[in-house]
Amino acid sequence: MPEPLFERLALLGIGLIGSSVARIAREHGHIAREVVANARTQKTLDRVVHLGIVDRVELDPARAVAGADCVMLCAPVGAYAELAAAIAPHLAPGAILTDVGSTKQSVIRDLGPLVPDGVHFVPAHPVAGTEYSGPDAGFSTLFEGRWCLLTPPPGTDEAAVGKVAELWRRCGSLIETMEPAHHDRVLAIVSHLPHLLAFTICGTADDLADESRQQVLKFAASGFRDFTRIAASDPVMWRDVFLNNREALLEMLARFTEDAQAMARAVRWGDGSYIEDKILRGRKIRQSLIELKQA
Amino acid sequence: MPEPLFERLALLGIGLIGSSVARIAREHGHIAREVVANARTQKTLDRVVHLGIVDRVELDPARAVAGADCVMLCAPVGAYAELAAAIAPHLAPGAILTDVGSTKQSVIRDLGPLVPDGVHFVPAHPVAGTEYSGPDAGFSTLFEGRWCLLTPPPGTDEAAVGKVAELWRRCGSLIETMEPAHHDRVLAIVSHLPHLLAFTICGTADDLADESRQQVLKFAASGFRDFTRIAASDPVMWRDVFLNNREALLEMLARFTEDAQAMARAVRWGDGSYIEDKILRGRKIRQSLIELKQA
Repeated sequence: MPEPLFERLALLGIGLIGSSVARIAREHGHIAREVVANARTQKTLDRVVHLGIVDRVELDPARAVAGADCVMLCAPVGAYAELAAAIAPHLAPGAILTDVGSTKQSVIRDLGPLVPDGVHFVPAHPVAGTEYSGPDAGFSTLFEGRWCLLTPPPGTDEAAVGKVAELWRRCGSLIETMEPAHHDRVLAIVSHLPHLLAFTICGTADDLADESRQQVLKFAASGFRDFTRIAASDPVMWRDVFLNNREALLEMLARFTEDAQAMARAVRWGDGSYIEDKILRGRKIRQSLIELKQA
Repeated sequence: MPEPLFERLALLGIGLIGSSVARIAREHGHIAREVVANARTQKTLDRVVHLGIVDRVELDPARAVAGADCVMLCAPVGAYAELAAAIAPHLAPGAILTDVGSTKQSVIRDLGPLVPDGVHFVPAHPVAGTEYSGPDAGFSTLFEGRWCLLTPPPGTDEAAVGKVAELWRRCGSLIETMEPAHHDRVLAIVSHLPHLLAFTICGTADDLADESRQQVLKFAASGFRDFTRIAASDPVMWRDVFLNNREALLEMLARFTEDAQAMARAVRWGDGSYIEDKILRGRKIRQSLIELKQA
């Protein structure tokens, strides 16, 4: 077995992602000698203790990061600025500060100015998840075969980037480095917009008159079932993602809305070949995903 | 084992739904003594013979329905009018004519006037499916625990409705009778609109500049993956559904678009509590589905 990458890993936030990392660290021993978990409430920490997936819990984030050579923010991205302000004076010299947030420009905007000299800031985003949340939701195979995207600002210490990449490789991820702005645009279309649409259609259905709503639930066909699965995701995490990837999300929604209106027009005017062509393109994309083993 | 419900069942169209009914009839013997399949092409019929799931195949729909006491249309709903015109003179007196189409007002509009006196017309819609199509896609448990909605026009023979209901019960379905217009509205929101959104977002992604598109495919997170699964469905079937449930689909899309625009506005202006509230409603709907065992 390889030596652990870190002496002490501090996880600030221990939901689906953080608790999956904790489980991997515990199962394989090749991530860190010691794992410390911090959460917003003692209740969550009590649950983490009960689950037995970390070595120590700390309600105070400053105490959680003390002496840690790797600090990973696993909280909703909207909580980062406050967390960073609380921990910045307590980060060990030479420590790596990383995160798992689904938006990257906002993370660099919020954290960058607060990172002390001598601390290496390596933003990261493991593109993996389920519709479940909280420390019970994690599992040690969550990242296997999934991408982890690194968006280090120019000038970031190469060795620190290499260690974060190696951490995620040991979690089973494939690694890619990209520009933060490009990351945010790609994720807006593959993940953030689909979630926005799923949340919205559930609301649209919920607004139907009572009798119809009961029938909607009763006869939910496979299409709607899949949408509600997505829509069951964590509200605070997704609220923060939307608010922190505003520009890209609104642009993708605007493009999508134009396309949906074009489809509506084809339906209204009976343009069957337009509709068929659009469906065939969907199939083609599906086929590509299967070939790329992301289906 | 109960006696077969019918002497001869003719399936006009033998894709996912038709071939699933054929497999159930073959496995359990309680649907019909003989099953005849018709398809648009000899190639499909050759495949059906190879699969060994029916007793006889007929390329001519008129020959397929001759002597059948139950005729089930399992083709895309846009093909119904032509099929009905071809078979109407050949339907046996007292036979039941039923279908499996996802739209019901259009089916009654297209078929109603062509049904000969003495033939009992019982429109039905088994709300079940996968993203796969064709005779290979069917399987005998497809309908288990799923709803089959019957929309018989006023004055339809009660015994005929009862036999169609019993056929679907023997396929594992739960039965409900409803007004055709109500059916079309409910299905527009639970199934047709979700498919339209899924097809559209795949097109929106496909329109992104080449480099982004490759990355979209590469990093498809779970949200987009689920959308492409829906979007892989049969293009002709769905084109016909959209064109034949035009009014209800456009109304639901208009409601949805208003809601999506309201969400966009909340994102633009940073209204976090609005966003969170909408996501919580999605969760609630998901929870209801789980309780109703439709998740």
